Amino acid sequence: MADDEFAIIDQYFATIGWQSDSVVLGPGDDCAVLAVPDGFELCVSTDTLVSGIHFPEGSDGDVVARRSFAAAVSDLAAMGATPYTFTGALTMPVVDHSWLSTFSEELSRLSVEFKIPLVGGNLTRGPMSLTITVMGLTPAGQAIKRSGAREGDDVYVTGYPGEAGAGLLLLDKAGKRLNSLLDAYQSPQPRIEVGEGLRTLASAAIDVSDGLFADLAHLLDSSGVGAEIDVEKIPLSAEMLEFTSRDKALSLALTAGDDYELCFCACSSNKAEVEKLGQSTGVKITRIGFIVMKQGIRLLGDIVDKLDLAKKGYQHF
Amino acid sequence: MADDEFAIIDQYFATIGWQSDSVVLGPGDDCAVLAVPDGFELCVSTDTLVSGIHFPEGSDGDVVARRSFAAAVSDLAAMGATPYTFTGALTMPVVDHSWLSTFSEELSRLSVEFKIPLVGGNLTRGPMSLTITVMGLTPAGQAIKRSGAREGDDVYVTGYPGEAGAGLLLLDKAGKRLNSLLDAYQSPQPRIEVGEGLRTLASAAIDVSDGLFADLAHLLDSSGVGAEIDVEKIPLSAEMLEFTSRDKALSLALTAGDDYELCFCACSSNKAEVEKLGQSTGVKITRIGFIVMKQGIRLLGDIVDKLDLAKKGYQHF
Repeated sequence: MADDEFAIIDQYFATIGWQSDSVVLGPGDDCAVLAVPDGFELCVSTDTLVSGIHFPEGSDGDVVARRSFAAAVSDLAAMGATPYTFTGALTMPVVDHSWLSTFSEELSRLSVEFKIPLVGGNLTRGPMSLTITVMGLTPAGQAIKRSGAREGDDVYVTGYPGEAGAGLLLLDKAGKRLNSLLDAYQSPQPRIEVGEGLRTLASAAIDVSDGLFADLAHLLDSSGVGAEIDVEKIPLSAEMLEFTSRDKALSLALTAGDDYELCFCACSSNKAEVEKLGQSTGVKITRIGFIVMKQGIRLLGDIVDKLDLAKKGYQHF
Repeated sequence: MADDEFAIIDQYFATIGWQSDSVVLGPGDDCAVLAVPDGFELCVSTDTLVSGIHFPEGSDGDVVARRSFAAAVSDLAAMGATPYTFTGALTMPVVDHSWLSTFSEELSRLSVEFKIPLVGGNLTRGPMSLTITVMGLTPAGQAIKRSGAREGDDVYVTGYPGEAGAGLLLLDKAGKRLNSLLDAYQSPQPRIEVGEGLRTLASAAIDVSDGLFADLAHLLDSSGVGAEIDVEKIPLSAEMLEFTSRDKALSLALTAGDDYELCFCACSSNKAEVEKLGQSTGVKITRIGFIVMKQGIRLLGDIVDKLDLAKKGYQHF
């Protein structure tokens, strides 16, 4: 079996995943060629995950595929964008066919699940990392920016933030298996359907990659406002409370990254519609506070004094 | 000076380079938002360059910027695409402000030179590498594929292939400075204007990143044809012949990568138009052979026996 780039691409990546009429020319030429439908805008985001930094060294190919894919596609969800196409640039030290097989099968499955064709990529030798560039579509003018939050808006979060952080801690503990937490870390779910539904409801949105506290702060900075967050309202699952104490769970919920849930704001007049969106998508959506003029985040609740908030979000350097 | 990702992005990348009305929302949100004009198709390509593999370890930021940018933008040239936008994902082991400053200044200069705005990116810790995803536009249906070469078409190459390979050899030799060869390696020129002009002239095109022989072979495979190449016609500059013997120079021209020249095919009835394009763009364009039905590449010329063609193109693994 030839171990050159082109043979590997042919074997593992040439014809995998979702196929779409929008793709005029797929992988295998100098560029892919895409037909962007009239009346839509293109949302683009790039994310790199590095072995030993963003996933443990020696991670299986399917875990790397899921975490990298979620990190990238989640940015589309945060804009309210419908997945359109993506490219993947994989760097690996040696050709490991077993790993590549697991990786490409999972990437193909995700591509089909989210109806997002893989249109190109790059494969090269070097320290293990993966860069995914995603493209999504929104009707022109409907992308949800970070900068639209206004005084009085409600602040929401999807899912159970902090579970991925707990899952990462669990990875190091043999024996105790709380699978939903491990899943939150190893198989994060980009909230595409919620994002699409929020286009006409949300005033601002961001995905929670660095931690709820840090990412909400980015949103507030962009919008030039602040927020009061009722910490007691942050949802904690039974598994989370089995794993750790209530105050440690809330600390993780506020500061651990990797969840790829959405944090968003919406005018209080949209409250019933937001609730309906949670029901129709089957995704838990919780109102955790509201927007105020005064900048910064004010955490409310008796438990706040007990929280460990020293690490207020993932620092990339 | 804070060394977190966001501070660095603000300092070095937030507002650099070309600004365009097509960019509805630039860097700083979950995604960039782009307005793709009606009637155009989007060409997309991703390239990763890894330190110690694609550029020497310890390379200056401006060299890394130029080589990575050229590798990516050259794929647009090979499709006949006009540069539209790009993203950059930079991974570096430690924050080196001097390097970042040199890198971002050069990236900004290139962005302005090629009128291609930087719309997003990623910055993370890890072994040094850079992944650039470029997007370009072609009028719908006019992208130049690799697969269109037909029997009797002429085969052309731009510039002086092999000079970048010679430049790389020169990097290791103190004293002897043949600057145009070093430039060919350190500052390759994507042939955008030639590519745009070829949209209505060329039947197929590819950029020469892995070596003329290997890349022409990819084009021929895609088109299901072969080629006869008159090796004596491959252009060699005076600097190349000062650097090495004629047969070694031709060996480099056929097998060394990194040039980012274009190799393309065109119907013989377009010969005069191709010549005019060379004159109007100031880029040397040389007819080096023609397309035949019989697959494979047949090299013609008495000198062929003397060439070192063992390495027929860069192998990525």
